[in-house]
Amino acid sequence: MATEGANGVEINGASAEKKAVVFTAVKPQLFVESSKASDAVAFYKAAFGAEELNRVSHPKRKADQELPLLLSAEIKLGSTSILISDLSDDSTAPVKTASSGLVFCLETEDVEAAVDMAVKAGAVADGEISEGEGTCCGGRVGKVKDPYGIVWVICTPAKKFANVEA
Amino acid sequence: MATEGANGVEINGASAEKKAVVFTAVKPQLFVESSKASDAVAFYKAAFGAEELNRVSHPKRKADQELPLLLSAEIKLGSTSILISDLSDDSTAPVKTASSGLVFCLETEDVEAAVDMAVKAGAVADGEISEGEGTCCGGRVGKVKDPYGIVWVICTPAKKFANVEA
Repeated sequence: MATEGANGVEINGASAEKKAVVFTAVKPQLFVESSKASDAVAFYKAAFGAEELNRVSHPKRKADQELPLLLSAEIKLGSTSILISDLSDDSTAPVKTASSGLVFCLETEDVEAAVDMAVKAGAVADGEISEGEGTCCGGRVGKVKDPYGIVWVICTPAKKFANVEA
Repeated sequence: MATEGANGVEINGASAEKKAVVFTAVKPQLFVESSKASDAVAFYKAAFGAEELNRVSHPKRKADQELPLLLSAEIKLGSTSILISDLSDDSTAPVKTASSGLVFCLETEDVEAAVDMAVKAGAVADGEISEGEGTCCGGRVGKVKDPYGIVWVICTPAKKFANVEA
């Protein structure tokens, strides 16, 4: 795989001028413990008002199990698509990743309402809503953890980065 | 936090009609081992042609350390913003999350070129490029793991989900 570029792509540091690779979509895909993906989709609808765009179940699993293995459900949150999938042995899903950490930042004008909605849907508030100091927004910031272990930072984009130097 | 909604939001299952919470942006934020965030940003520029939109360093750290703690750098990949941050004790960053797994799906018409670019920048190809069977795309699929532990699935969106039932 690490051979000469079949398409003549040559990268030198940050420049990729020679042949631009264009990404038409970037979609985070979250794997949750099987078979909780369907529950997770329902949760994200209730907690964040996500819209389900499509859902693909594993065709072979349907005959064997009552709960079909969810290969992926695509939900839309704001203008972003997020894929939710059951983690399984026979899929192309990765093993548990050991990444240092991930949160999703949700920008909204009404942090209180958003946190409230998420908590009523089953998320757990992590601390009080406060004036943030920068990690992803500079305005009001609330934080919730969902039942699947994902942390969502809910914040206002106003005055972002006003208190730190660029 | 789990009190009556200050804004009168009432959620019942998946319906959130009463007061819509609008998310104006959804940004995944990746925390990498401190102080590798700056390297990670350079890598994502080289590997995926990401564009750096802004960068916020910790103001107090600048005097103490040569490498400033990167509170967050926002990079644009396709039309998606991703935040890259150094994981630190004194920030609002979460501790290491124990999520089941996360990958990023990148859709592009030229999987070979994209994988090649990423590998040349330092990512490790995970298997051969092949015709996918569905997890995030139904077309050609390649997979790379970046130096920071994140798995990127690079695929063509063509014929997506053609081989599985909805």
